[in-house]
Amino acid sequence: MGGMSNDALPARLRDELGKDAVLTDADVTASYSRDMMPLAPAGRPLAVVLPADVEGVQATVRACAEAGVPIVPRGAGSGLSGAANAIDGCVVLALTKLDQILEVDAANRLAVVQPGVVNLDLRNAVEKHGLFYPPDPSSYDWCTIGGNLSTNAGGLCCVKYGVTTDSVLGLDVVLADGSLLRTGRRTVKGVAGYDLARLFIGSEGTLGVITQATVALRPLPQAPATLVAGFTSTEAAGEAVARVVREGLVPSLMEIMDATSIKASEAYLRTDIGAGSGCQALLLCQSDSGGEVARRELAVLEQICLDCGSDMTYATDDLAEGNMLLQARRVVLTALELYGTWLTDDVCVPRTRIAELIAGCHRISEEVGLRIAVVGHAGDGNMHPTIVYDPTSPEESARAQRAFDDILEVGMALGGTVTGEHGVGKIKQDWLEREIGPVGMRVHRQIKAALDPDNLFNPGSMFAPG
Amino acid sequence: MGGMSNDALPARLRDELGKDAVLTDADVTASYSRDMMPLAPAGRPLAVVLPADVEGVQATVRACAEAGVPIVPRGAGSGLSGAANAIDGCVVLALTKLDQILEVDAANRLAVVQPGVVNLDLRNAVEKHGLFYPPDPSSYDWCTIGGNLSTNAGGLCCVKYGVTTDSVLGLDVVLADGSLLRTGRRTVKGVAGYDLARLFIGSEGTLGVITQATVALRPLPQAPATLVAGFTSTEAAGEAVARVVREGLVPSLMEIMDATSIKASEAYLRTDIGAGSGCQALLLCQSDSGGEVARRELAVLEQICLDCGSDMTYATDDLAEGNMLLQARRVVLTALELYGTWLTDDVCVPRTRIAELIAGCHRISEEVGLRIAVVGHAGDGNMHPTIVYDPTSPEESARAQRAFDDILEVGMALGGTVTGEHGVGKIKQDWLEREIGPVGMRVHRQIKAALDPDNLFNPGSMFAPG
Repeated sequence: MGGMSNDALPARLRDELGKDAVLTDADVTASYSRDMMPLAPAGRPLAVVLPADVEGVQATVRACAEAGVPIVPRGAGSGLSGAANAIDGCVVLALTKLDQILEVDAANRLAVVQPGVVNLDLRNAVEKHGLFYPPDPSSYDWCTIGGNLSTNAGGLCCVKYGVTTDSVLGLDVVLADGSLLRTGRRTVKGVAGYDLARLFIGSEGTLGVITQATVALRPLPQAPATLVAGFTSTEAAGEAVARVVREGLVPSLMEIMDATSIKASEAYLRTDIGAGSGCQALLLCQSDSGGEVARRELAVLEQICLDCGSDMTYATDDLAEGNMLLQARRVVLTALELYGTWLTDDVCVPRTRIAELIAGCHRISEEVGLRIAVVGHAGDGNMHPTIVYDPTSPEESARAQRAFDDILEVGMALGGTVTGEHGVGKIKQDWLEREIGPVGMRVHRQIKAALDPDNLFNPGSMFAPG
Repeated sequence: MGGMSNDALPARLRDELGKDAVLTDADVTASYSRDMMPLAPAGRPLAVVLPADVEGVQATVRACAEAGVPIVPRGAGSGLSGAANAIDGCVVLALTKLDQILEVDAANRLAVVQPGVVNLDLRNAVEKHGLFYPPDPSSYDWCTIGGNLSTNAGGLCCVKYGVTTDSVLGLDVVLADGSLLRTGRRTVKGVAGYDLARLFIGSEGTLGVITQATVALRPLPQAPATLVAGFTSTEAAGEAVARVVREGLVPSLMEIMDATSIKASEAYLRTDIGAGSGCQALLLCQSDSGGEVARRELAVLEQICLDCGSDMTYATDDLAEGNMLLQARRVVLTALELYGTWLTDDVCVPRTRIAELIAGCHRISEEVGLRIAVVGHAGDGNMHPTIVYDPTSPEESARAQRAFDDILEVGMALGGTVTGEHGVGKIKQDWLEREIGPVGMRVHRQIKAALDPDNLFNPGSMFAPG
């Protein structure tokens, strides 16, 4: 690594990328130093760089490599693991100005996009062609495709349509020496060489900087029909989810809310969502198969819920009414702010173990004396137990951290993973090591060393190089 | 690497794995030295090793590593790229005795299998639970899951259900030092660390030996309804495929046969498949949506075919009749043996370019003076132009090789890839380099060097390490 002083690097970057592309004012750079995970550490960047094109990304990587200054790549900052958080003295490489949808090839059902495109903008652009980009993390109206790729983001769609990696055909990636890797293809199949695209997807900015993606699109589904079902026990709701899976149903959405989530939503929306006072869990299901088929799918789902003891079901194929019902789920995190600051966890268990996970979270809630609301993607077993606490109290923060970890412990004991869709980032490095073990860690370090030998990209995030 | 003599290695392997697990008779080992690709070179193995368990695989890898003897992993040998072909003095590591279905977890829709399980056996085993393992390469009745994983095999199912990698949750892999990597998970979502499973899938045995897989299963679809449509020009058939894609239809199967394929099938089956003498292309489509939905899907497909100029369509929801119609497609390669030895190519183009690819193949056929039959997975753009030649004639073999390469040239010029599902193996190394370029090759070599620094696994297959 070079001997350039830290003052010289911003000057060089301004020379190469233009004055406006390089921010060094501490107040400004601080606003680029964090994502949405309160527990994760964040340092003070030397500079924030906002390249306008791929050449600007390459120039930034080369300059930082020569100066020995680490790079933390970043999209909109909607992440929930601190993966995009700055470290002291780094360059934050914000990809938000690479925001062009370069091509929508409707005839081949694909689009070519830059990483700074907002998820919702891509969804809207392809919808005009009767097409559908499925990945829909809850921040879809402001998160970027680059961040989605780097974290392999999920969302509500996954139960039927998979996660981000399932929608990617090819990637362009700037490597640690500034060279541009083009990997993948525009065809729907292809096995020429290693699946490098999927190695970079979900690598949280530790292996390179994604500068372009070719994504596969699906036919636009029908407007969804919606079913809600209330249960007087989480066990009954969990059994309904397991039955749905076992009987081979694939709803386009299947979400669960526990009693704490329901109460928060009702308080926030100032409405009774019809769950009843004894309701311990609510399932929300949708079918996007359209018309009679959707009605039949929902009828089967409804019958399973009733068979499992649901005491309240309601189905509608009215889109506006369905959106209103879904609103109860969508506002949970915001609603929890009525009580304090939220800290959302992310754990994925086999779909037969959901009720046990929720029960574990309720036990932890009592143990730590903090409110924990459990919401999640029931159809995937991907739960987001969300802890409410006062971050100004160190003692309460410690209890929140303990609950956060205890939830992961319960998830792992149920055969689950410590992160279903939010990632490892700067908060779950120890948990990654516990989950994948020493051989898995060694392979991670070998790949990191092979592609980023000087540990230029997002050092210390996901894992310590060794 | 150690200094053990080549005689000592089989002796050590017999000591550690048992006498019956190590074959050295030259006539016997020769039968393990090739897959189904006639163009690929094959050497003479020092020994063939058939471990009965993962410990046997680890012992073999450690012994070979110490002796400096390369390992060529192998399943049933149904491959079409020579990836499993022996090199002189290697150990062929045949995984066929690791043939247990360890678990079918119907409630979580997954199965845990060893690599030697035959694809059809897994399909049958999970069907009893009302579940479906989609990947169906044409050799599904004898190829193994391990081979499918190593080549990321496709098949007829891909247009609706994706390729092998889309059905995998986790893998166990024996690495070059004999250690066992467990990667992936049993949950349907998970982002803890790099997507190592998908790095090993499709790596053609160059990075490690897959000893176990956890695969995701789908609900068993309905018995398919079938549509055939004849066209008097390949352009019209290609336009029908493009229209089907553009209009957002997702048949569960969509195959194309050109006139040469049709004639061969008819001659072999001794039947008129109803295509008519002027028929230049046949589309075969299925819907597995069941009942009225399937009938509606096929009616839309049929109308598109008619709009594009089809002069013969026939639809049936009778399973036996559908299977008979599909038989015409399934027997093409066997049927071509009426005329000589076949050499099947594998190229995938954007789905709008299929007619151009077929036209290119017909031009090449005239140029080289050899029969070329084009069949393929039209819904994916994955075509298998198949050259008929006399392998005992060096001159004709050279023309076959020229046709094989010219087809790839045409495919690349149309924006395609040089292998859609068969792999690079020992026949397309130069083409891989042309397709992915120097940066892509460098990354491949970096990853290979990181995971297999002594080039123990399948050296020279897919690419030369450097």
